[in-house]
Amino acid sequence: MSHNTFGHLFRVTTWGESHGPALGCVVDGCPPGIRFSEAGLQHWMDKRKPGQSRFVTQRREEDLVKVLSGVMREDDGTLVTTGTPVSMMIENTDQRSKDYSEIAKRYRPGHADYTYDVKYGVRDYRGGGRSSARETAARVAAGGLARLVLPGVTVRAALVQIGEHKINRDNWDWSEVDNNPFFCPDPETVPVWEEYLDAVRKAGSSVGAVIEVVADNVPAGLGAPIYAKLDQDIASNLMSINAVKGVEIGNGFEAARISGEENADEMRIGDDGKPVFLSNNAGGVLGGISTGQPVVARFAVKPTSSILNERRSIDSDGNEVDVRTKGRHDPCVGIRAVPIGEAMVACTLADHYLRDRGQTGRLD
Amino acid sequence: MSHNTFGHLFRVTTWGESHGPALGCVVDGCPPGIRFSEAGLQHWMDKRKPGQSRFVTQRREEDLVKVLSGVMREDDGTLVTTGTPVSMMIENTDQRSKDYSEIAKRYRPGHADYTYDVKYGVRDYRGGGRSSARETAARVAAGGLARLVLPGVTVRAALVQIGEHKINRDNWDWSEVDNNPFFCPDPETVPVWEEYLDAVRKAGSSVGAVIEVVADNVPAGLGAPIYAKLDQDIASNLMSINAVKGVEIGNGFEAARISGEENADEMRIGDDGKPVFLSNNAGGVLGGISTGQPVVARFAVKPTSSILNERRSIDSDGNEVDVRTKGRHDPCVGIRAVPIGEAMVACTLADHYLRDRGQTGRLD
Amino acid sequence: MSHNTFGHLFRVTTWGESHGPALGCVVDGCPPGIRFSEAGLQHWMDKRKPGQSRFVTQRREEDLVKVLSGVMREDDGTLVTTGTPVSMMIENTDQRSKDYSEIAKRYRPGHADYTYDVKYGVRDYRGGGRSSARETAARVAAGGLARLVLPGVTVRAALVQIGEHKINRDNWDWSEVDNNPFFCPDPETVPVWEEYLDAVRKAGSSVGAVIEVVADNVPAGLGAPIYAKLDQDIASNLMSINAVKGVEIGNGFEAARISGEENADEMRIGDDGKPVFLSNNAGGVLGGISTGQPVVARFAVKPTSSILNERRSIDSDGNEVDVRTKGRHDPCVGIRAVPIGEAMVACTLADHYLRDRGQTGRLD
Amino acid sequence: MSHNTFGHLFRVTTWGESHGPALGCVVDGCPPGIRFSEAGLQHWMDKRKPGQSRFVTQRREEDLVKVLSGVMREDDGTLVTTGTPVSMMIENTDQRSKDYSEIAKRYRPGHADYTYDVKYGVRDYRGGGRSSARETAARVAAGGLARLVLPGVTVRAALVQIGEHKINRDNWDWSEVDNNPFFCPDPETVPVWEEYLDAVRKAGSSVGAVIEVVADNVPAGLGAPIYAKLDQDIASNLMSINAVKGVEIGNGFEAARISGEENADEMRIGDDGKPVFLSNNAGGVLGGISTGQPVVARFAVKPTSSILNERRSIDSDGNEVDVRTKGRHDPCVGIRAVPIGEAMVACTLADHYLRDRGQTGRLD
Repeated sequence: MSHNTFGHLFRVTTWGESHGPALGCVVDGCPPGIRFSEAGLQHWMDKRKPGQSRFVTQRREEDLVKVLSGVMREDDGTLVTTGTPVSMMIENTDQRSKDYSEIAKRYRPGHADYTYDVKYGVRDYRGGGRSSARETAARVAAGGLARLVLPGVTVRAALVQIGEHKINRDNWDWSEVDNNPFFCPDPETVPVWEEYLDAVRKAGSSVGAVIEVVADNVPAGLGAPIYAKLDQDIASNLMSINAVKGVEIGNGFEAARISGEENADEMRIGDDGKPVFLSNNAGGVLGGISTGQPVVARFAVKPTSSILNERRSIDSDGNEVDVRTKGRHDPCVGIRAVPIGEAMVACTLADHYLRDRGQTGRLD
Repeated sequence: MSHNTFGHLFRVTTWGESHGPALGCVVDGCPPGIRFSEAGLQHWMDKRKPGQSRFVTQRREEDLVKVLSGVMREDDGTLVTTGTPVSMMIENTDQRSKDYSEIAKRYRPGHADYTYDVKYGVRDYRGGGRSSARETAARVAAGGLARLVLPGVTVRAALVQIGEHKINRDNWDWSEVDNNPFFCPDPETVPVWEEYLDAVRKAGSSVGAVIEVVADNVPAGLGAPIYAKLDQDIASNLMSINAVKGVEIGNGFEAARISGEENADEMRIGDDGKPVFLSNNAGGVLGGISTGQPVVARFAVKPTSSILNERRSIDSDGNEVDVRTKGRHDPCVGIRAVPIGEAMVACTLADHYLRDRGQTGRLD
Repeated sequence: MSHNTFGHLFRVTTWGESHGPALGCVVDGCPPGIRFSEAGLQHWMDKRKPGQSRFVTQRREEDLVKVLSGVMREDDGTLVTTGTPVSMMIENTDQRSKDYSEIAKRYRPGHADYTYDVKYGVRDYRGGGRSSARETAARVAAGGLARLVLPGVTVRAALVQIGEHKINRDNWDWSEVDNNPFFCPDPETVPVWEEYLDAVRKAGSSVGAVIEVVADNVPAGLGAPIYAKLDQDIASNLMSINAVKGVEIGNGFEAARISGEENADEMRIGDDGKPVFLSNNAGGVLGGISTGQPVVARFAVKPTSSILNERRSIDSDGNEVDVRTKGRHDPCVGIRAVPIGEAMVACTLADHYLRDRGQTGRLD
Repeated sequence: MSHNTFGHLFRVTTWGESHGPALGCVVDGCPPGIRFSEAGLQHWMDKRKPGQSRFVTQRREEDLVKVLSGVMREDDGTLVTTGTPVSMMIENTDQRSKDYSEIAKRYRPGHADYTYDVKYGVRDYRGGGRSSARETAARVAAGGLARLVLPGVTVRAALVQIGEHKINRDNWDWSEVDNNPFFCPDPETVPVWEEYLDAVRKAGSSVGAVIEVVADNVPAGLGAPIYAKLDQDIASNLMSINAVKGVEIGNGFEAARISGEENADEMRIGDDGKPVFLSNNAGGVLGGISTGQPVVARFAVKPTSSILNERRSIDSDGNEVDVRTKGRHDPCVGIRAVPIGEAMVACTLADHYLRDRGQTGRLD
C-alpha cells in the first residue's frame, strides 16, 4: 500500500533496522476473539530464524516475539485479540559491535546501499539497515496471526530450485519439508543440494533459488478486481521480499508457451455434486478471484549479494573501490525466504478474506 | 490499492464493462500545468485498439477518448491540467447485439465467469463484463497522461516471445517495433511469428506471449521501501492486466540459477565523473529503489481463453456442458498487452515520481 | 481519503467542474445484488436541484443521473449492482455562455479563487470550476446508492437555523420538512425565514445556516477506532462540503458547558430486555462506535460568498480591485446543503457497515 | 485513514492500551535528514503528561519516548531521520494493580465500554483499554516530529473555555499559556477557573472545555480538495481525540449567523507588495486550501465521563447497576487536550506539506 504498510483491512506496518534496538510490526484490523499463544507464533519465527544450519547466516537471534498490545491475556497465558492493533516487537540481540567505517561509504554491489544514499542522502549502513532481511522477521510474526484469521486454510511453501538444480516434482512430499535444512519436498534432491551448496559456501560464492507457496482450502471468491486481484496482491507482496526478482501464479511463464487448449482448466461436476477443476494451470485464480483450487505461487530469489569474492564498486566520495563482504555469510538467502513467502501469502489471503466478507457478506 | 484504483499520489480509478455504454477512468493527483491534446492521447489508444491486423480480435472500436474534467481548453485545443481529477471516457460502439442466453449461464474455461458468479452472485456476462480486456483502454488513456508527468523518461515495450518462439535479442531494434503487427523488435522473427500465428488462428486455437517493458532515463531514487518498492509496484500493476501469470524484473527467474559473482552489477566512475553500472541484471532497481539504469520488466500472458475448440465445463445450474467460443477470435491476446504494459509502467513511475518529490523534496 | 476519494470499502471518487461537459462519480465497493432505479436516485437529486424556489440559485439543471457501469439492467428497467464500480454521470446543461475575462483574474472574497491559483497556478474560473457546489450533485447520487447498502437505516436532515433565526425544537415534525422551501421541520419558523430571506435576497446579501442530520436505526457497533471513528468520519465528510465551517456530534459544543452528570447518557434495560439509553447527548456515538441510538450531527454553513454588494479584493496581476457578483444569486447556500449532508452521512454509514462486517463478521 | 492510521504521506499508526506494557506509534514517510533529540520530543510529552496539577489525573507516568527505528544517532546524541519508519514507544509504568472484576462487566456511562463490547465481543477493560486517553501520548510524540517537517510553522493551542467560563479574548497573551495549569492565555481568567474547577473537583464532578489551535506561517496552498481539504483533515483529526464532540474552523458556527458582507475576508496589497487579508473569518482556509493566514481551529471536549457520583447503567449480563468511578479523577480532561490538539494539527499540516510538494512541486 504505502511505504511500510501492506493490506487493506488486515493491515501490516513494519518498522526497524538490522542493528537498531528492535524491529517489529503493527497488525491493524485483526478480527477480535482470535486465540493464540506466543509459543504458537514462535513456531513460525523459528523456521525463519538464522543460524540453524551451515547453509544460512550464522547470526544468532532468538527472535522472540513480544506482543505489546491488542490482546487480553488469559490465566493460562492464552492471548485473545480484542480488535485493536496488535503491536509485536522482536529485539535485536546479536548485533556484533564492529567498525563500520569502511562499509559506511562503500556501495556493496547488489545491495541497496547506493540507492538509499541517492534517495535519502543518509543511510543506516549497519548490517544493511532497513533493507536487511532482518525486517522479514516482523512479516513472519504477522503471518502467524494471519493464518488464524483463515478458517481451515493451510499455507505451506517449499524450495523447488537452487541454482541450476530443480527438484523432481514427482517426488513431492510435504512431510519431508521439515526434515532437511532446505525446506526441500523431494528427499532425493536433498543430498544434491547439500553437496552443491557446500561447494558454493566454500568458494565464498552464493546462488539463487525458487520457492513455491501453496495455499489449500482457500474459499472460492477471494480477490477484488480490477486492481486488488488476489494474484496481483500475492505477486506484489512476494516481490516486496528482499532479493525477489520474479513471481509466477499457477503455470506462470510456462503459460506463454502453450496453447489455449492445453492451458484451459476444464470443469466437471464432482461426485459430491460440487464443481471440480480437472487441472490447475491457473494456480487457483481466475480473473483475479480464487477458484477454490489450491492457490499456487512461485518466486525467484537472486543469489546473496554479500560474497567473499571481490567485486568492483564505488564509494560515496566517488572513488572506485573493490568490495568483498567479510564476516557472516549466507550462501543462499533463498532458503530462509520459504517461511517469509508463506507469511506474505497468509497475510494476503487474510486481508482478502476480510474484504470479501465486508463487500459481499458471503463469508462467516 | 483498493478494488478499482491503483496509485498513491497519481491515482487511477477505472470503471466500465465490455458491453455497457462506456468505460473510462478518473486520474486523480495529476500535477497542474501539464499540456496535452486528445490527439496525443489517441496515439497511445490506437496502439491498443482492436481490429488492426488479422492476429487480433476483429471488434471495431475507435476508442476515442473524451476528456470530461480536470483541464482548461486553450484556443488551439490544447488541454492544460488544473490539478483536479481528469475524467476520461471511451464509448463502446461495436457491441454486437446478439443472444447472450447461452453464454449467460456457461462458465467458459480460463475465464472469470465462474469466479465472478461465486463471489458476486450476479454477473454481466456480455462480452466478459468487467473482466473483459476492454477495461484496459482506460489504462492506456491514463498511461498517456502519466508519461507527461515524467520529464525525459521514455517507456517502451516489445513482444519477445509467442508460444515457443522467442526473438533473437541480438537483433533488437526499437525502430522495428512499429513496423509489424506484433510489436516485435527483431525483424527476423516477424515472418516466423506470422506463419506460426496464422496456423494457430486457422486451427481456432490460441497461444501465450511474453512482453518486455523498458523505461529509460528513470531518475535514481524512485521507489518507497518496504511495501511500495518500485519493482513491487510494477509487478503488481503488470499482474493486474488480464491473463498475466508471471512478472520478472531484470534477469528475473534467471537470477535463481546464477552465482552472486555473475549477478552483481559492478560499478565504476564514468568519464563524466558519474557512477556507471557495468551490467543491469537488477533491471534498474536495487532494494526497491531505482538505480538510474533502465528499468526492465517482463510479463507472461497466457493463451487467449476463448478458443473455437470445445472444452469441458459446467453451467450455473450445475450441468456439465461443452463450451466453445463463437464469433470474434483473438489468437494471441499478448500482442495487445504491449501498449497496456507500457501504460502500467508509466503510471507506476509517475506515482513514484510524485511520491519521492513529496517525501524527499529532491526532484523538480 | 485522498484528494477526490472518500471511504474505505464503500469508496466514492468524484470528478467534474461547474462548466465542463459533465460531472460525476465512481462508487467502488458497492455490494452486489442491490436493486434500484434511476428514478429512485432522481428522488434525491431533485431535493438538491437548483432553481426550485426563489431562495436558491436560479441555475436550471435537470441533474439527470446516467448510470454507466456496474449494473445489469432488467427488463423492467430495474438496475442490479454487480459488485463492480458504479460510474454515474450528470451532464451540465445550463452553463451560461458569458464573458469570463473579468472573473478570470479577480479573486472573489470568500471563494477559493485565490487559493487555487496559489496552489495550482492555473484554475478553471468558470462558475468556480472544481470548487463549485455543482460537485455535490455527484455526492447525492452516491448517497442514493449508499442508503440501499444500509438495511433499515433512515438518514434525514433538516435546516435548524438561518442567520440568527433558530427553529423551535419542540415543534420538530419530520413530515413538515418537504412542505416548505427550507427543509424546515418547524412550520412556525417557515414564515419567519421566508420574510427574513426575502429581505436578505432583495438586499443582494446572503446569510449562513445550520443543518442537522439524523440517522435512525443505525446498528450498534459501527465505527473503527482510533482514526476512523464513526463521528470522526462523519465530521470529516461533512466538513468536505463547500462552505462548511463547523461540525458537531450530539450535543456538540454544548458539551463543553455542562457537567459530567448532565452529559452522561444513563442506561437501563428496556421492557424488551434490551439496553436503552435515557438520553442521547452522545449523538449515538461513544468511543467512535455507534451505540444503536440515533446518530445526530450538525454542521454550519457560511453565508454565500457571492453577493451583489462590492467587496475589496485583488486580482492575479496584483491590482487592488472591487468585486461584486453579478447574475444568479443564492441568498442562503445552506438550504441546498440539507440533502448533501444526508448523502455524506449515508455514505459514511455504508462504508462503516461494510468495514465492520469485514472485520468482525457480525452483520449480515 | 484506516482504523489506527492517519495521514497520507506523513502517516502515523498508533497502538497500545492503558494497562498493557507499552504504547507507541510508527511514523512512516517522515522526510530524511531531520535532526532532533529525545529531549526535544520530551518537551511536548511533558505538556501532556498526567499528574502535573491537582486539576488533572494523578496517574504518574514519565512518558519517556524511546525511538526504536528510523534514525541514526550521532555522537552527541542527536538523532537524524533516515526516511524509514520511526517507531516510538512509551512504556506504561503506573498501571495500578487492582481488582478489575467489577469494572470488567459494568458499562460506565459516557465511556466506550458498551460499544466496544457490542462491536468486538471482547474488551480490555483495564483503565479503558484502547479507548483510554493514554493513547494520545503517541500522538504527541508524532506531533513532535511533525513540527520539524514544517519549516517556520508554529503550532500553538490554548484553552478558551471551561464549563460556562470563557476567556476574555482581548487579554490573549501566548506567553501566559505556560504560566498556569490550564494553558490559559488570559491571566485574568486563571483564578476564575481555579476556583471553579476546585469546586467541581471537590464535588466529584467534571466539566467540559473548548480548545483553540492556531498555526502561524502556514504557506498558502496546502490542502487537497475535494476530500482531503485542509480544514476537513484538521476537523477529522481533532474529532479523533477522545471526548471531542465538535470542531470549528475560523469563525465556525458563528458564520451561520452573520451576513456574507460581514463574513467575507477582504483583500488588499500590502506594503511589501504581497496580498493581505483584512480579516480571518475563514480561519486560514478557503476552498479547503490554506490562504497563508493563520490556520485557526477550535474543538469542544465533553466533561470527563469518570465521575465520583453514581449514574445508572447496565452490565454485560444485562443487569441494571449503578456506576461511580473510584480512584484517580480528572475534573476536566479538556486541559490535557491542549497539547494533543497541537499535535494533531501539526501532523495534518506536515502531511499536506509533503503531499503538496509531491503533487505540485512548489515547495522546497
